[in-house]
Amino acid sequence: MAYNNSRNPLRSLQKRLNDSIIIRLKDGTEYKGKLKEYDNFMNVILTDASEFINKEETGKFEEIFVRGNNVLFIIPDAE
Amino acid sequence: MAYNNSRNPLRSLQKRLNDSIIIRLKDGTEYKGKLKEYDNFMNVILTDASEFINKEETGKFEEIFVRGNNVLFIIPDAE
Amino acid sequence: MAYNNSRNPLRSLQKRLNDSIIIRLKDGTEYKGKLKEYDNFMNVILTDASEFINKEETGKFEEIFVRGNNVLFIIPDAE
Amino acid sequence: MAYNNSRNPLRSLQKRLNDSIIIRLKDGTEYKGKLKEYDNFMNVILTDASEFINKEETGKFEEIFVRGNNVLFIIPDAE
Amino acid sequence: MAYNNSRNPLRSLQKRLNDSIIIRLKDGTEYKGKLKEYDNFMNVILTDASEFINKEETGKFEEIFVRGNNVLFIIPDAE
Amino acid sequence: MAYNNSRNPLRSLQKRLNDSIIIRLKDGTEYKGKLKEYDNFMNVILTDASEFINKEETGKFEEIFVRGNNVLFIIPDAE
Amino acid sequence: MAYNNSRNPLRSLQKRLNDSIIIRLKDGTEYKGKLKEYDNFMNVILTDASEFINKEETGKFEEIFVRGNNVLFIIPDAE
Repeated sequence: MAYNNSRNPLRSLQKRLNDSIIIRLKDGTEYKGKLKEYDNFMNVILTDASEFINKEETGKFEEIFVRGNNVLFIIPDAE
Repeated sequence: MAYNNSRNPLRSLQKRLNDSIIIRLKDGTEYKGKLKEYDNFMNVILTDASEFINKEETGKFEEIFVRGNNVLFIIPDAE
Repeated sequence: MAYNNSRNPLRSLQKRLNDSIIIRLKDGTEYKGKLKEYDNFMNVILTDASEFINKEETGKFEEIFVRGNNVLFIIPDAE
Repeated sequence: MAYNNSRNPLRSLQKRLNDSIIIRLKDGTEYKGKLKEYDNFMNVILTDASEFINKEETGKFEEIFVRGNNVLFIIPDAE
Repeated sequence: MAYNNSRNPLRSLQKRLNDSIIIRLKDGTEYKGKLKEYDNFMNVILTDASEFINKEETGKFEEIFVRGNNVLFIIPDAE
Repeated sequence: MAYNNSRNPLRSLQKRLNDSIIIRLKDGTEYKGKLKEYDNFMNVILTDASEFINKEETGKFEEIFVRGNNVLFIIPDAE
Repeated sequence: MAYNNSRNPLRSLQKRLNDSIIIRLKDGTEYKGKLKEYDNFMNVILTDASEFINKEETGKFEEIFVRGNNVLFIIPDAE
């Protein structure tokens, strides 16, 4: 299906490159880190990332490649 | 699959740009905010958004990028 | 996959435009309203719509955009 | 993916047009009615249709549009 | 995605046409019958088919059209 | 989506043709047998195959066609 | 859908070839091993791999082919 929509929300991620963002997955897990890369399928790479389960930090990753089809939403890190 | 339908419900979202809308996800969570962007896959960006779980406000986001395949429905914010 | 089937059930929705229809989702929720738009993915827009859970009315929407992949079936509103 | 298989089970539905058939969905619900239309995605329209849950009739529909990705199997109505 | 693999397991079903085969679905239900048709999506038509749930015969069908995305595996009927 | 990746893990299955391999499905069931065929969707045909549920052998098949979208992983049979 | 994103997170896996990485699946199972191959669908081959369930090692594999659609995330092995 041609991605011919004049509007392209994914392009807004372009402006967030190197910003700190938060990704929430469908199972509620959250990953906070610097947005290094993304693609049309919302596959995302974060660097200096932390994992949060029920708001508690449960892991730190130098770099993490999150597969897009698990993503619920992405927000800029307000802190 | 060519998106050759003369009718295009997604185009109706075009008229809702900058309006306040409500997105309900499959798990019942709702996001209310200003429609900034959308695409063919119903990936949506809202600004000045609030999250509601069981009608109770549980979060505020300057901007939120919701992945389309979690969306159940979208309605204009009647308030 | 080319949608080259001479028969096209979706075309029958064309005749239902502006008719009152009922959409049942996979989770059993039903939406009754006037069919305003639809597309190949069974994304549907209803106007003057009501939501029913277990046959009880639980919501009214000026307009609702229902995402196709949640749809179980569509029937004309017999009333 | 090109639908280039010389064999085409969906074509056998062609011979069943206007016959009474039974559709069983993944959740076990069955719909019996006259096959009016179908397409490559097994979206099906039945007319004069009845709904059965656990073999008990639970609904009658002048016309019903069943979305293909819920379908488990289709059989000719032996009665 | 082009189905350009020199090897084509589905072609081996070609040799099984008119043989008795057994289809197991993801939910464990099995269908035994003569393979009449199949396609790239593993949509399959069996004739003179029987349904088995927990190894107990629970139905007989003159012809059954099983939708491919429910299929777990297919084996030749050893009996 | 063009499968234009210079690297092609599926090609490594090519070297495993006629070797004994083990397929684990998402539900934990395992199938051990000789790799006869496979395709881009990881549809796989094994011959002289055995089924294992919780490490206990629960079935033997002259030939089994396993549908790719149920596959969790494939390993060479170390024995 | 053309994979026409200038940014390509999967390319970053290219730099990880022959590095030790950890793959977490949606069900929480983890596989640690040397990245030998990957493709656009995140199908991945690891060599000298170990399986971990709830942080406990539960298996060792000379080579393992993990199907992409089960993957939650990939991280470099920090050890």
